[in-house]
Amino acid sequence: MTGSFPECLFQQVTIIGVGLLGGSLGLVLKERGLAKTVVGVGRRQANLELAVEVGAIDRFVAEPQEAVRESDFIVLATPVDTYLSHVQGWGQHVPSGAVVSDVGSVKGQLVFDVEAALPTTAFFVGAHPIAGKEKSGVAHATSQLFDGARCIVTPTPHTNVKALAKVRRLWEVAGSEVVSMDPMVHDWVLGAVSHLPHIAAFSLMHALQDLQENTPEALSLLDYSGGGLRDTTRIAASSPEMWRDICLANRENLLLMVDHYIAQLQAFKQLLRDGDASGVVRNIEQAKVLRERLG
Amino acid sequence: MTGSFPECLFQQVTIIGVGLLGGSLGLVLKERGLAKTVVGVGRRQANLELAVEVGAIDRFVAEPQEAVRESDFIVLATPVDTYLSHVQGWGQHVPSGAVVSDVGSVKGQLVFDVEAALPTTAFFVGAHPIAGKEKSGVAHATSQLFDGARCIVTPTPHTNVKALAKVRRLWEVAGSEVVSMDPMVHDWVLGAVSHLPHIAAFSLMHALQDLQENTPEALSLLDYSGGGLRDTTRIAASSPEMWRDICLANRENLLLMVDHYIAQLQAFKQLLRDGDASGVVRNIEQAKVLRERLG
Repeated sequence: MTGSFPECLFQQVTIIGVGLLGGSLGLVLKERGLAKTVVGVGRRQANLELAVEVGAIDRFVAEPQEAVRESDFIVLATPVDTYLSHVQGWGQHVPSGAVVSDVGSVKGQLVFDVEAALPTTAFFVGAHPIAGKEKSGVAHATSQLFDGARCIVTPTPHTNVKALAKVRRLWEVAGSEVVSMDPMVHDWVLGAVSHLPHIAAFSLMHALQDLQENTPEALSLLDYSGGGLRDTTRIAASSPEMWRDICLANRENLLLMVDHYIAQLQAFKQLLRDGDASGVVRNIEQAKVLRERLG
Repeated sequence: MTGSFPECLFQQVTIIGVGLLGGSLGLVLKERGLAKTVVGVGRRQANLELAVEVGAIDRFVAEPQEAVRESDFIVLATPVDTYLSHVQGWGQHVPSGAVVSDVGSVKGQLVFDVEAALPTTAFFVGAHPIAGKEKSGVAHATSQLFDGARCIVTPTPHTNVKALAKVRRLWEVAGSEVVSMDPMVHDWVLGAVSHLPHIAAFSLMHALQDLQENTPEALSLLDYSGGGLRDTTRIAASSPEMWRDICLANRENLLLMVDHYIAQLQAFKQLLRDGDASGVVRNIEQAKVLRERLG
């Protein structure tokens, strides 16, 4: 049935890394008939077996070369710091005209590095579906994950126009609103709206641990938290490996952004120290107005 | 019907400030037959009319003295920095043996100050139901608001034992788990688990505004946010007046707590600056373990 689907974009897709994002993309490709065959590549056999079971991939292989050399679409869905070693491992086997893409949260220089590491006959298109959960793994994969989300594609001056159109179409069929952005601008934008809030949440959990150590009685601070703390720190439970890589890959932006954040916390402290009631209320009012724009 | 309820704790209750918390408490008192009559006091007539309409109060008065002098239970549900001026206004009219309580998010010295401002024949019991929403106003009041929440009561050496038992019972019937805590310890605990996360969220919204001003293209950062930023900053849309008062009333603790938070952000920055991948992953793993305790 999938072969006769009016819009079969790809013959064989290889997904490198079949976790939440890779698995959800596999489900989209299969359920919407966008690919004849989806092959998974990964480190853990049990995970790949589960991916077959839930219908995210048709089969899996131990050696990526084997799948890559017969694929017209290859997607990197592993932590971003593994991209270059992956591409160095199988780049030379990518068929001429095949499209290579990814789903990573960091673009910037990495996009240019991956482009440079691939043969000039292969076409790289960076893509970042802004979707995810704090739960990782193919067990949580769903073809609805990208529905209503934005997907940022990050073409460079070298990007092949047809390859870009195919990747855009894939994400449109997945239900996403596709936006094009310079790879460097992408990292600034995502640093601000995603990576910085993650660091804020990680550090808030650590601050609470510090405060617990200074708590005068044998009581557990976390027993007294309400929904506010739970919401504010939900993303602190994200995958440590994934976020290590994102934070390090985008560290130049993040060092500056954390400084902006610290400056704002210092400014709030100053208002408190001065007992400046109208300054405090103005600060919170402005925060509220900004927050309400988020919906 | 309410009069014949097996557990009518109070004859007439006066609620000063009929917003989300005061209104929800009124609904509990009425629906569960804990009081024969509930009288509302407030500044805005339209709000008080709405409170009558939704069944949170039976009637309202313009002058608090009038209601207070015939009440055996008076609840302060206004911003905490108004407590003293309220009590100075009608304290002398509180009948002998009547119980005065509150629902405020700050206790500490304020509890001792309110005690001292009341006649010795009136019994003050500080109470803080840890419940709320980012939506304020009696329009959002519900008798379920306190269900499953914690309520902290903060007795002092002067607290009347029977008055304390009545207030505890009220909150138990409201569905809350009642915990007793020293007023000063209360402010430390709530500073950590509630007030600090609010400041973190306010400052994060301001940092995003700073970053927007530094954004190289005509694009709106907030257009690219996902669920992470929305959750992390949800509480930034809280009531500015309420949070001004909380932050200022608890500022000694908060100045220290924001410093702990800034120190953790600096520590994360140092890991990024050093490119310390194992340090970054360890930091995030610890945050994740702590966060997972929150459920």
